[in-house]
Amino acid sequence: MPTSIMSTSSSIIPHLSPPITYCSFSSSSTLRGISLSFFPRNPSLKTPLSMNKRTNLSVRSAVAIEKETPQDERPDTFLRESDGPSSSVRARFEKMIRDAQDDVCTAIEAVDGGGKFKEDVWSRAGGGGGISRVLQDGGVWEKAGVNVSVVYGMMPPEAYRAARGENAVEKPGPVPFFAAGISSVLHPKNPFAPTLHFNYRYFETDAPKDAPGAPRQWWFGGGTDLTPAYIFEEDVKHFHTVQKNACDKFDPSFYPRFKKWCDDYFFIKHRGERRGLGGIFFDDLNDYDQEMLLAFASECANSVVSAYLPIIERRKDMPFTDRHKAWQQLRRGRYVEFNLVYDRGTTFGLKTGGRIESILVSLPLTARWEYDNKPEEGSEEWKLLDACINPKEWI
Amino acid sequence: MPTSIMSTSSSIIPHLSPPITYCSFSSSSTLRGISLSFFPRNPSLKTPLSMNKRTNLSVRSAVAIEKETPQDERPDTFLRESDGPSSSVRARFEKMIRDAQDDVCTAIEAVDGGGKFKEDVWSRAGGGGGISRVLQDGGVWEKAGVNVSVVYGMMPPEAYRAARGENAVEKPGPVPFFAAGISSVLHPKNPFAPTLHFNYRYFETDAPKDAPGAPRQWWFGGGTDLTPAYIFEEDVKHFHTVQKNACDKFDPSFYPRFKKWCDDYFFIKHRGERRGLGGIFFDDLNDYDQEMLLAFASECANSVVSAYLPIIERRKDMPFTDRHKAWQQLRRGRYVEFNLVYDRGTTFGLKTGGRIESILVSLPLTARWEYDNKPEEGSEEWKLLDACINPKEWI
Repeated sequence: MPTSIMSTSSSIIPHLSPPITYCSFSSSSTLRGISLSFFPRNPSLKTPLSMNKRTNLSVRSAVAIEKETPQDERPDTFLRESDGPSSSVRARFEKMIRDAQDDVCTAIEAVDGGGKFKEDVWSRAGGGGGISRVLQDGGVWEKAGVNVSVVYGMMPPEAYRAARGENAVEKPGPVPFFAAGISSVLHPKNPFAPTLHFNYRYFETDAPKDAPGAPRQWWFGGGTDLTPAYIFEEDVKHFHTVQKNACDKFDPSFYPRFKKWCDDYFFIKHRGERRGLGGIFFDDLNDYDQEMLLAFASECANSVVSAYLPIIERRKDMPFTDRHKAWQQLRRGRYVEFNLVYDRGTTFGLKTGGRIESILVSLPLTARWEYDNKPEEGSEEWKLLDACINPKEWI
Repeated sequence: MPTSIMSTSSSIIPHLSPPITYCSFSSSSTLRGISLSFFPRNPSLKTPLSMNKRTNLSVRSAVAIEKETPQDERPDTFLRESDGPSSSVRARFEKMIRDAQDDVCTAIEAVDGGGKFKEDVWSRAGGGGGISRVLQDGGVWEKAGVNVSVVYGMMPPEAYRAARGENAVEKPGPVPFFAAGISSVLHPKNPFAPTLHFNYRYFETDAPKDAPGAPRQWWFGGGTDLTPAYIFEEDVKHFHTVQKNACDKFDPSFYPRFKKWCDDYFFIKHRGERRGLGGIFFDDLNDYDQEMLLAFASECANSVVSAYLPIIERRKDMPFTDRHKAWQQLRRGRYVEFNLVYDRGTTFGLKTGGRIESILVSLPLTARWEYDNKPEEGSEEWKLLDACINPKEWI
């Protein structure tokens, strides 16, 4: 199970001061591109940090970051000038996620017919910022959010040392970091049209200020997963095939490994069910060539439209009954349960002061909880539940 | 902030074995009467215990308890014969909560007109059990749950020693405990009719087996709180007045103290809002005469019908618009956020294997999340939000 990174279009909540405060990294599968979770300097409020064991390059520690301010216009880049040329991985990753945001939003609006994305842009004085786009109550989607963000901050040396191995003896000072990501949740209205979530993110440290020769750390994370209320085998196969094709261009081990990782991550433990029918998920990925992983993350993000929209085109106008809608709403309740109880980005963000509207835009417009609902064995609802309890190989 | 007790109509989740397993106490404001949260013996899964500081007599530690089995009929008592006469506090508390369950359910069905409570009864071989009653999609309520439960278990000596003070030097063996409670959440359909939650509970230890002369510990906890989507001053005043009258019969300090405790407990930190308009809440209460507190808890539980149903009678048939309904649904979303993110009983129960359907019956049938919803200043919606952000004195 992954436990690392992420930053967000978070704001520092009003009661936290001074404006530069501490925040924590956590793995994100929500709508923030990347999620940085803030908490005040009071150590008693840092207890969530101790709840999960770090793994691999996970960084779960206090960092310093500035408060964001709204902007009227999108800047060409959220990067600092000191980040170097447009050929840097930072610059190319930012360009990739911003292009992907444009492409996905354009495609969504075209299929939706009626709804338009509302955009919020924000930046930080010291560099970084983000673009949130939300389409609500459209023709096809009841809620669709696509966010990108870029965050600069300082993380404490313990985190950096941990990233280089527990036995490192150097004692460097605070370590500057860079994090960028795209994140999206798309909830359609029609109960036969599935919800989609995707999130791709890149993290990089500078060398510590007082140890300029020390190595930089970097990693990639992300995934794309499908959450239908009803199973159409051709849809799920198509979706997983697009994921597998994207993976297979880079490494034949990726799809099986990241498919399982996805099934493991989106697990609603108290139900013994997955949130949906999976896809791919990976985190802390740095044990491959950096250029290869950049190309891989780009390929995945660029596959979202072809993986998802053909399914929506087939399902968006299908007739449905109140029973179908109620079941979709129950599954939306499960989505809420996963995101509020388990999703690390959400739970960290909520408990430690992220920008609430950005964090919770991942929740559906509507959801439902019935007491002791048990689908009849063999029914279409039962088949979906069975596939969430017992993950299947779809291709 | 309280941090103690409670037990539930929990079942041990399938992957936990042996059937006798460990569980933890946590404060409960949900629908389990009392909530006992289970977790396996693997110490790495006990981390939630470290998240909250204990206060007062709080017990937050591993206990052993048996798996429950469904029953066809309600027994006269869930107590063990060894509990002694019907004049014991245990016996009188059980009788009180079972009578209160009957009274509330009878009153709810009478006002609802159409809906009937569905009952689930369960017991444990070694003593204890519970009765869950849920009315769903009735004439007036969309979801109404009223549960009672009685739990016997063993708690580790550390917890008992802690309860007697950190400096105790004796090292007694495991300590048998008894916990009983009633808990209820009532969600009406009409957006002008408020949600009610109440929960009253009693906890008692035996002396440790190898230290029979050591003192017993006991305490009471509970509360009743109101969550409307729209403010009708006469309703809120009536509700708080009933709570104050119940308190004032016992101690003039109770109402102001427990009113504030309620405002503090039902706080959605990431929103900076309370879940609703409060009422009373107390926990770990043992620094008064035991008979007095038993009478006080009984008075509170017996005040539920007169505090709540007159309000429902006034509001249940009021005409409303889609806007009113949507706002109610947004506030239901807040209810879900509080219960899944903050309520200690719920979060402990979910993460550690309680009976899911009993825990989550506290969630509304339907809920809604809109991106960046901001009520217009001065509107009725804004007034409710303002009162949730800035708790008021209603009487």
